[in-house]
Amino acid sequence: MEGRRLLIKNAKALVGTHAAGVERVAGAAMRELPQVEQGWLMAENGIITAMGNDADWPGITDWNGLEVIDATDRYVLPGWCDPHTHTVFAASREGEFVDRINGLGYQEIAAKGGGILNSAAKLRAMSEEELYTQARARVEELMRQGTVAVEIKSGYGLTTDSELKMLRVAKRLKEELPLQVRTTLLAAHAIPPEYKADRNGYMDLIVQEIMPRVAEEGLAQYVDCFCETNYFTVAEMERLLEAGAEHGLLGKVHVNQFTSIGGIQAAVAKGALSVDHLEIMEDADIQALTGTAVIPTLLPSCSFFLGIPYGPARRLIEAGLPVALATDFNPGTTPSGNMNFVVALGCIKLRMLPEEAINAATLNAAAAMGLQNELGSITVGKRASFIITKAVPSLAYLPYAFGQDHIDTVIIDGRTVRTGEATD
Amino acid sequence: MEGRRLLIKNAKALVGTHAAGVERVAGAAMRELPQVEQGWLMAENGIITAMGNDADWPGITDWNGLEVIDATDRYVLPGWCDPHTHTVFAASREGEFVDRINGLGYQEIAAKGGGILNSAAKLRAMSEEELYTQARARVEELMRQGTVAVEIKSGYGLTTDSELKMLRVAKRLKEELPLQVRTTLLAAHAIPPEYKADRNGYMDLIVQEIMPRVAEEGLAQYVDCFCETNYFTVAEMERLLEAGAEHGLLGKVHVNQFTSIGGIQAAVAKGALSVDHLEIMEDADIQALTGTAVIPTLLPSCSFFLGIPYGPARRLIEAGLPVALATDFNPGTTPSGNMNFVVALGCIKLRMLPEEAINAATLNAAAAMGLQNELGSITVGKRASFIITKAVPSLAYLPYAFGQDHIDTVIIDGRTVRTGEATD
Repeated sequence: MEGRRLLIKNAKALVGTHAAGVERVAGAAMRELPQVEQGWLMAENGIITAMGNDADWPGITDWNGLEVIDATDRYVLPGWCDPHTHTVFAASREGEFVDRINGLGYQEIAAKGGGILNSAAKLRAMSEEELYTQARARVEELMRQGTVAVEIKSGYGLTTDSELKMLRVAKRLKEELPLQVRTTLLAAHAIPPEYKADRNGYMDLIVQEIMPRVAEEGLAQYVDCFCETNYFTVAEMERLLEAGAEHGLLGKVHVNQFTSIGGIQAAVAKGALSVDHLEIMEDADIQALTGTAVIPTLLPSCSFFLGIPYGPARRLIEAGLPVALATDFNPGTTPSGNMNFVVALGCIKLRMLPEEAINAATLNAAAAMGLQNELGSITVGKRASFIITKAVPSLAYLPYAFGQDHIDTVIIDGRTVRTGEATD
Repeated sequence: MEGRRLLIKNAKALVGTHAAGVERVAGAAMRELPQVEQGWLMAENGIITAMGNDADWPGITDWNGLEVIDATDRYVLPGWCDPHTHTVFAASREGEFVDRINGLGYQEIAAKGGGILNSAAKLRAMSEEELYTQARARVEELMRQGTVAVEIKSGYGLTTDSELKMLRVAKRLKEELPLQVRTTLLAAHAIPPEYKADRNGYMDLIVQEIMPRVAEEGLAQYVDCFCETNYFTVAEMERLLEAGAEHGLLGKVHVNQFTSIGGIQAAVAKGALSVDHLEIMEDADIQALTGTAVIPTLLPSCSFFLGIPYGPARRLIEAGLPVALATDFNPGTTPSGNMNFVVALGCIKLRMLPEEAINAATLNAAAAMGLQNELGSITVGKRASFIITKAVPSLAYLPYAFGQDHIDTVIIDGRTVRTGEATD
């Protein structure tokens, strides 16, 4: 590690060069995506140490061990941050996808053993090692797609042992892969079959057994709850957020995916870091977020795949809020962890400007997992984690040409994790 | 070329092994996608010569110069055929994309110099060489995405010289690249500014000057017309199809994108090969297609990008028709030539089964450009043009996991044009 140095030169632009201390961008400021045109950048030991315009290049005397990347005609972007995923799971669920095409409803699919409980049954049966092997392959693909930080939830275990198993897998991903991983306890994803007649018993299990174990073993930084009609009530979510606070677990919660039932107001009152999904937002829900520190996080790939409404990005931005974007990667409702496509959907479907969508997928997404001082912008002192694009005519071309892979090179903490033409 | 031989062995399945003579699949037959599990395949000089199940592998005595691909755990699919594109164009139009996000309407964008006439102005100004260089890079990307045959239209020239220039570029792509290219005269894409007050004059120009030149130089196999309210009338399309017939140019026409004005009935009457777009279909439009040889071709990426309705694939299939899928690749309304995403949209948005979508993007798509005896299925005597997938759990996984690149290797006429793990 020592003395490891990287120089990127001749970039068409360094994009997202927010000043140090800018931890998120909200409202009209989201369209400000600062750039250094014709830029160079130095990193040492994985941290950005200096940057500027080619005209102001100070030169270098010690070329020893310096890796040099010529980014002529290429943009350098902060790597994507993905603050909402369920990347640890036991099996893909394309069978349910075909069932839905064949016209089966959710109830019928559940009766055939589908849905979250399908994933839970498979996950409980799978060894931690096999779960790790599968999840690792997925996360390696995410890194190739430019993701440099990912949040991963539990929630397909629904027993103490299997929730802990999921979070241990996520922790091992964090230890063994270069990207940043943040983990979230989502035991309140569904009521497991064995507690069908005793939902309070399951709540007790989470609060009295699972959460203390998770906290004790340092397996999660956040607590989540699927607060939704027919899943968990607002009161249940409040109980979880209160218990989480006692263990130092901030709230990151599923709310307003299908119905507006007061989850946002409760999450705000309990000091949650983010409220995620937000497909169904009444004006009062948006008002409840204004003036708070809570980050509204939209998951457009889920809307795309399920055909449910897209989150109201424009209304949220017009209300002055700091919108973040995430994939929701999971085998049931969003079988894609591709943040490039999320950014494209942000523009094509949510009507975000390219600058807004990029801010939402970098700086605000970093903030939605507490990484705003490490990632999310190209700023001296932050991690040297970048996407170097192919030669493209403009930044707007990235979401516009939605069917192409625009990434040439991916760098995490100063190390190349995907090699392209610029680094071959 | 002589003696060039290829063996693919151990395939998880050879997919789309339709019997010789099956030129398209329609209605309920679209869900029949024949497969040889654990298959092997031989090709010589770019043509499939034999195939079967591993258990029936006859062995081989002459291994001299034989290229062997081990497709263990991988599917072998017919390469995609893309029967509707505008791949030759002068410049991307992401500026208009941003204008639309900013709320500008079509009229305002046109007033700023946008739309088809924007593309026309830029194309007229660009040299044939530069146009070729740009289009070639695009088509090379299409091949990497698994496309082995592409239809390319004129229509951004709108003068004799520049329409011919576009078609010469397309013809040169055909000559210099390995994939199959079919070309279509779409001079009737928009009324050019200089004929704004004299649309009959432009029709005369097409019929009396452009089309004869195109036919004389062998620059196109098809004639197209944007038959739509505010573009070209049904009567104008009829005149073009009649003139085309005299020159041996079959009709492939844009109809029912925004309005249903009788274009389908006219295209059927004039013996068109395909009717394309079909976002707005009345029952009478579908009835007009039943019992005919006309291929309804849907372009879901256009609907995705513009937010207009998706074509009614299910209604068309239920009416017994042979649906084809295509990209509509063009810089204004569909800046993607990715057939993999079209197949995913076919399932996610058009509610086609994976087997139906694959048939629509291979055999029926080949038929929609007259290539059904050369491509579109894995059949002895056809071109050895394939996609070899990565290791995926099922065929349904391909459209389900819509955000990933599932292609490992692409082979056109027996030659590898994209190398992957199977061919490294």
